[in-house]
Amino acid sequence: MVLKMLWINIDKESEISLVMQVYKGIKSYILDCKLVAGQKLPSTRSLAMQLGISRNVILDVYEQLTAEGYVESKHGSGTRVADGVGLNRLPNKVYPQLLAREGKNSEDGLIDFRSGVPALELFPKKEWGKLLKEACDEASIQFLGYNSPEGIMELRREISEYLFRVRGIDCLPEQIFITSGATQGASLISKLLYNPDASINVEDPTNKGIFKVISSGYGINTIPVDSEGLMTEFLNEDSNVAFTYVTPSHQFPLGGILSAKRRIELINYARETKSYIIEDDYDSEFRYDGHPVSSIFELDPQRVIYIGSFSKIFAPALRLGYVILPDSLSKSFTKIKVFSDVHTEAFVQIAMAKYIKNGSLLRHINKMKKVYVKRRKVLIEELKANFESKVIISGKSTGLHIVAEFLKYEFSESFVQKAIRHGVRVYPVEYHAIKKGNHTNKLLMGYGHLSEACIKEGILRLKSVFL
Amino acid sequence: MVLKMLWINIDKESEISLVMQVYKGIKSYILDCKLVAGQKLPSTRSLAMQLGISRNVILDVYEQLTAEGYVESKHGSGTRVADGVGLNRLPNKVYPQLLAREGKNSEDGLIDFRSGVPALELFPKKEWGKLLKEACDEASIQFLGYNSPEGIMELRREISEYLFRVRGIDCLPEQIFITSGATQGASLISKLLYNPDASINVEDPTNKGIFKVISSGYGINTIPVDSEGLMTEFLNEDSNVAFTYVTPSHQFPLGGILSAKRRIELINYARETKSYIIEDDYDSEFRYDGHPVSSIFELDPQRVIYIGSFSKIFAPALRLGYVILPDSLSKSFTKIKVFSDVHTEAFVQIAMAKYIKNGSLLRHINKMKKVYVKRRKVLIEELKANFESKVIISGKSTGLHIVAEFLKYEFSESFVQKAIRHGVRVYPVEYHAIKKGNHTNKLLMGYGHLSEACIKEGILRLKSVFL
Repeated sequence: MVLKMLWINIDKESEISLVMQVYKGIKSYILDCKLVAGQKLPSTRSLAMQLGISRNVILDVYEQLTAEGYVESKHGSGTRVADGVGLNRLPNKVYPQLLAREGKNSEDGLIDFRSGVPALELFPKKEWGKLLKEACDEASIQFLGYNSPEGIMELRREISEYLFRVRGIDCLPEQIFITSGATQGASLISKLLYNPDASINVEDPTNKGIFKVISSGYGINTIPVDSEGLMTEFLNEDSNVAFTYVTPSHQFPLGGILSAKRRIELINYARETKSYIIEDDYDSEFRYDGHPVSSIFELDPQRVIYIGSFSKIFAPALRLGYVILPDSLSKSFTKIKVFSDVHTEAFVQIAMAKYIKNGSLLRHINKMKKVYVKRRKVLIEELKANFESKVIISGKSTGLHIVAEFLKYEFSESFVQKAIRHGVRVYPVEYHAIKKGNHTNKLLMGYGHLSEACIKEGILRLKSVFL
Repeated sequence: MVLKMLWINIDKESEISLVMQVYKGIKSYILDCKLVAGQKLPSTRSLAMQLGISRNVILDVYEQLTAEGYVESKHGSGTRVADGVGLNRLPNKVYPQLLAREGKNSEDGLIDFRSGVPALELFPKKEWGKLLKEACDEASIQFLGYNSPEGIMELRREISEYLFRVRGIDCLPEQIFITSGATQGASLISKLLYNPDASINVEDPTNKGIFKVISSGYGINTIPVDSEGLMTEFLNEDSNVAFTYVTPSHQFPLGGILSAKRRIELINYARETKSYIIEDDYDSEFRYDGHPVSSIFELDPQRVIYIGSFSKIFAPALRLGYVILPDSLSKSFTKIKVFSDVHTEAFVQIAMAKYIKNGSLLRHINKMKKVYVKRRKVLIEELKANFESKVIISGKSTGLHIVAEFLKYEFSESFVQKAIRHGVRVYPVEYHAIKKGNHTNKLLMGYGHLSEACIKEGILRLKSVFL
């Protein structure tokens, strides 16, 4: 049962090495049972001659096949196919929809009032590139290895200083934990506080994406919001609550600022129920009338978990954020962060530390604020000019979006689809509502990423949808 | 009840703005109930005079306090403290151990035989910095925003090509999903396949860290390993198994290569039990005797989930890895990735795509391989010279570590501590064993990051521990 001939397709021009080509050829025969257990392969010399290639190639291949156990070589008795190495192989099928995903960017020209996207055309590409390069140049060996899960101390220090200056938050660098974006922060905290009998309090409406991230496995208590944010009188003190998720400086999506009185009530509620407050401070830096609203965190650092993000003030692509934690949670947070992704990418951390330290971040925020003030003004003016007294605007004091309420109107999915056909994408607030039916006449309108001309054109298109 | 005087500490030299200083001062009085509900604040004019600062500052402060709801202003009746805004404030305590964490790097001079750390002194800092900068310069607006959770297509394409060349793996870019390191890949897959009644099969011993990441909530079946890797005869076909976690190209930690026969058995087992195989291919690129061992993935892409990482071949600091998924899991994987961190940092993805595309990664791997061959040689020679026939070395064909078995010895925690006092850190294999007691005489010795001189000195120190 000696095999004299073994036909293998060889392409001497190929990028794939000859060894790999021959190896794959023989292995395929074995896996597909075209060569069976005990069968003897041609001698290296004879196979080399047959295929017209060097004998060393065949020696390499046989060695590899032996190491992997597909064949067995015994001195004097040649190389034989091993036992039990045939397999019914299935093709590597790929569903067609998977392949169709690419190149879906056919919506050119659509004006998209998506919320929460900053003016990325003003992203300081040159400076950021320079800082990343500096971070590389200066990288120590230790830095290139595994870094600490809490984040790199330089960045934690800079954030601590930044928060003190910009948000009036007084905390130590050691209380700040770097995350791969605010979503990761919310996700890890939700897991950390999980117990199967607990429920959570969430604002309604609330960010639909974050809601999915934090609510998995919990019972849900929806708490309505009004122009002063979360309506604390609806908090239920009897339930076993893990945490209350709030956006106090700019309620998402409606835009209210949580009043001082309700802040105090919320803190007292958390103390009484021994639950936590997750303060998502997603776009507080952009307050247009006066200073940023202060955080709840400063009212009780032992009850409030603060989530911050660089996505809105800088760029989502970085996936960089942080949480400030009560000491009681810091150890378990570190553990869960290690299990999640060990630590956040290190170069981006150093670049951001440098960017804050040299004052660029503050300058960038101030510059962006001026841009957003103008865009906000145009959006409000255009809405008023086109819809007059039929539109009421709220949530405009902070952030990158407003809420436009249209009297006696209901935004349906078919409206949204019609709008797309008119070249404009809009987002009903109802999309973010947990209990449906209370916000059907409101649109959430993001303007941070749209030029003034785009906003004007977008509102004209929106008007045409109503006609 | 008009308040005529209000003492606030003002520091005109401070970095904190006057507005913020006065705001914080008054808010503190209100929160601490030193100013109570209904109490009237001094007029802006009189407070400005008292504090010797501009009246505009006080106007700003009162406006901010009004916006946040700490005070109420009515025309004609002045500014009064609002109702219900006092709070029993607690100090922001920080546990001492939290503060002690920094600057723990007092172990200078310790020679650390930790496994899995590459030779980071050879990391191409200049080139990587340049590529990151290029990625910035070329960044489009879309790129700076939220990117696709599956990863950036340029990188997926390059990895697909790379895998075909280096690992003989034939898969489409669309089957490759970028992760923030291999740990994240393992963590997400474990969650994805979770069901409360399922158990998992794991090699024993196995990587202790990854074991914690993947095993949460599952029943555990430990499968022993020998010099040919996972002993498939111990796989139990009756149990409800979600997946089998294996390291076929270099069993961690013992170093065996999973034989072809066992690979086939494992595939057939997964097919019969409708379970998955997680193939962690953590350091397969560094095979010293012949080509890299081929993957299990290629034997059945519908049953095998392949996990790859750039930590070992490039640098852990990047937190960059990938998984190749069967189509049946791709949609739910994308979802769970979004919930975890939306997507992996974008600049590092582009830089890596460029680094693979221009051929640098392959050159880097080849360069590193030569370095590791030398270090491995020195480590083995030194072990043999110092411990002679008392030491047996295994797992040396691949990767960045070997296993040294010391005849008639038991490595206890006190040995490890004594070794540290002798200036050398070693890792008993037993540390990674789930069932204890079978590997007490073995050390796992990483050498990738240690210079030849360090290795020599380290073995001398190790010898002194035995004396």
